[in-house]
Amino acid sequence: MTRVSEIIAAKSQQFQAELEELLVHPSVKGDEQGLRGAADWVARRLSALGAQVHLLEAGDGPPVVFAEAGQGPRSILSYTHYDVQPPDPLGEWGSPPFQPTLREGKLYSRGVADDKGDVTARIQAVDVYREAYGELPLRLKFFVEGEEESGSPHLAALAGRYGEMLRADGALWEGGSFDEAERYTFFCGLKGIQYVELRVRGAASDLHSAYAPIVPNPAWRLVHALATLKDEHDRIRVDGFMEQVRPPTEAELAYIRRIPFPGDAMKKMWGIPEFVNDATDQQALMRFQTQPTCTICGLRSGYTEEGEKTVLPSSAMAKLDFRLVPDLTPELALELLRDHLDRHGYGDVEIVPFAGMPAARSDLTAPVVSVAAAAARAVYGHEPVVYPTHGGSGPMYSLVQGLGIPGGVMVGVGYAGMRLHAPNENIRLADYFHHIEFLVEFMRLFAAG
Amino acid sequence: MTRVSEIIAAKSQQFQAELEELLVHPSVKGDEQGLRGAADWVARRLSALGAQVHLLEAGDGPPVVFAEAGQGPRSILSYTHYDVQPPDPLGEWGSPPFQPTLREGKLYSRGVADDKGDVTARIQAVDVYREAYGELPLRLKFFVEGEEESGSPHLAALAGRYGEMLRADGALWEGGSFDEAERYTFFCGLKGIQYVELRVRGAASDLHSAYAPIVPNPAWRLVHALATLKDEHDRIRVDGFMEQVRPPTEAELAYIRRIPFPGDAMKKMWGIPEFVNDATDQQALMRFQTQPTCTICGLRSGYTEEGEKTVLPSSAMAKLDFRLVPDLTPELALELLRDHLDRHGYGDVEIVPFAGMPAARSDLTAPVVSVAAAAARAVYGHEPVVYPTHGGSGPMYSLVQGLGIPGGVMVGVGYAGMRLHAPNENIRLADYFHHIEFLVEFMRLFAAG
Repeated sequence: MTRVSEIIAAKSQQFQAELEELLVHPSVKGDEQGLRGAADWVARRLSALGAQVHLLEAGDGPPVVFAEAGQGPRSILSYTHYDVQPPDPLGEWGSPPFQPTLREGKLYSRGVADDKGDVTARIQAVDVYREAYGELPLRLKFFVEGEEESGSPHLAALAGRYGEMLRADGALWEGGSFDEAERYTFFCGLKGIQYVELRVRGAASDLHSAYAPIVPNPAWRLVHALATLKDEHDRIRVDGFMEQVRPPTEAELAYIRRIPFPGDAMKKMWGIPEFVNDATDQQALMRFQTQPTCTICGLRSGYTEEGEKTVLPSSAMAKLDFRLVPDLTPELALELLRDHLDRHGYGDVEIVPFAGMPAARSDLTAPVVSVAAAAARAVYGHEPVVYPTHGGSGPMYSLVQGLGIPGGVMVGVGYAGMRLHAPNENIRLADYFHHIEFLVEFMRLFAAG
Repeated sequence: MTRVSEIIAAKSQQFQAELEELLVHPSVKGDEQGLRGAADWVARRLSALGAQVHLLEAGDGPPVVFAEAGQGPRSILSYTHYDVQPPDPLGEWGSPPFQPTLREGKLYSRGVADDKGDVTARIQAVDVYREAYGELPLRLKFFVEGEEESGSPHLAALAGRYGEMLRADGALWEGGSFDEAERYTFFCGLKGIQYVELRVRGAASDLHSAYAPIVPNPAWRLVHALATLKDEHDRIRVDGFMEQVRPPTEAELAYIRRIPFPGDAMKKMWGIPEFVNDATDQQALMRFQTQPTCTICGLRSGYTEEGEKTVLPSSAMAKLDFRLVPDLTPELALELLRDHLDRHGYGDVEIVPFAGMPAARSDLTAPVVSVAAAAARAVYGHEPVVYPTHGGSGPMYSLVQGLGIPGGVMVGVGYAGMRLHAPNENIRLADYFHHIEFLVEFMRLFAAG
């Protein structure tokens, strides 16, 4: 055992108890008491590090708890969040979601993986560092928000207001985990997103389909408008859209080539005979890591229940999400979509936009990436799997790339069976302590430069 | 007053009482007692004409009540039905649906317009005829079924089995009425129909939309398959489909040209700025009367509720109805659709067919059409509006064109405010008695040849 792991072992009961103290607060959107309880707990625990705690507020949402610990020329921004997903459906939990329960080495509770385990592990890692090596030789900036599960509506405003205080030489984001093959996996970015509804109106109300020869059908109009956005070979045809996609950098290609991609196992798991366009594993992986998407998430028009109803619908709706890459901002995606529809004669197709988020792509040559990989090798004993980007989206951009922080890595306490956003969310307690060791090693290496 | 109208006036209380006797039976699908009560009443009332009554049975459904009255070289098949739509929603009725109630000259009850008023009017017309002129000089074949509101599932089988007995020189169908402008209106045919669901499968379950670059999306596949069926200008592109459409006959064109078609009022009523393809009134009317349709009646895939859910759907479904013209049978439409999808690379799009019905188009030079128009002129005092076809569909074909009967006309006791299939179904009692007079005149003229 290393000195660090000895210290963690000695403190393991205290650390678990602290995590459980945070978990009991039902910090679900709309539960003001639960959110305040969690925020207060985090603020107190950060104070106990000797750090000056600030509550950053915007709008009427729960505050961000901010604090800085350590001294040194280099700095790291740590992003985590204390709010959690609602626990429904309650009946499927093996133990109450806000009553942390240990079974067979796994700690079950809503939020334990997403993201309260990360909140406490990062604070506790400072205690361990200090006991092992003395004062923390870098400035660790804790940014713990309470609106992540609500889409972080105030994050961009706070980043704008407190940018000087938040700026750092690298960022630790939430979200890493062990994959199915027990390889430690982290992501260095997130795709952006722009979600929209497309709406088409026809007659004032649904009509008998006998009138189809003379009354316009909004479902057909929607189908034809959609068919201009993407071709049969899954190529996005929104005018000017694909021209925005940068070719991958050499560093990105190097990381992508090292990602294991068990195509046959994935197809089997998903029950699909082939990937889109019969892509090979390497083609599929490259698309996954480098390409934007235009996805129909929902379609609805007319009669959708069982059986037969001869109706001419009065409206039709499609929900689309565009997953975005750098340069293709949500604003630009919306503008290109509107222009495309207008140019193709679909000016009547209404676009209802939801809040967008830009893509966050780290410079893969930034120190935070290589240091995280080195710390993972040292602590987990194997080469981690490093994805240039996650396939999903998150609010990283405004806090990292938007502030000029060159890179952020998504690391965390999870594993493949953690059941994010589902009943029986859990982590393996051994992973939790192991991850504290990883964080300590990361800080040591990052400070050393 | 004519002799006929005097007789009707003298019998009006009896006739209304008889109609109400039939209306109190709740002859809704699944209510065996209600259906049997109505069938028994019809059989007894037909017996009272001195006719031999036959109950024609197929499967386990309610029987067809068949009877023949009158003597003479010419014959008419009269189609009506004693079953009714369910009365839901009950709360919206001004009086109980199976308790006939007269308010301001209107008789309210479920089935009074569709179609029990026609059932009794046609029987009572024989009484009136005999009192006015002596024995009925044609053979009037009453065919009163009990499964019309269930799609007449046994009609084709019964037509095949009893064809010899049912065959006639013309047919009176149900369904005529006064239009909004108080013009008596009847139809000489119905479009056919083939309703289908198109289904596409993707992954075994819905996935996070992050996987869109690599996992096939059935919603996109469905959109592209649909886009091959019809173009942006509402032209049906199913290979071989439009080639089946006969040009209208001279007689059809002559009737179509006389149909009033208040395009602006219709657009205003439906809340649409233009007809499909900016058609003129005459183009719209011609399309309505002569063209088949391919209508999206429903679309469903993925997430269709309020708000945002980033899901990659595992299935997508469209409901389509094809309204058919002569020669374009339901079987042929299905075959052309399957061939088309296969030829365009959509062999994986599953077609789930519902029961189809062929188009019923009368020969507009057949005596039944001109006699019905002449009787309407004589009794209603104006030129009736004669549509070659109804825009909707019904089971006329197997009983009329399928048996070699050259023409059938849809006449009845209704008016524009009759609220078919809705709460507060009603007829105007004056229309009812007027219609009996029309039927008597029709029989007189038809027998005269």
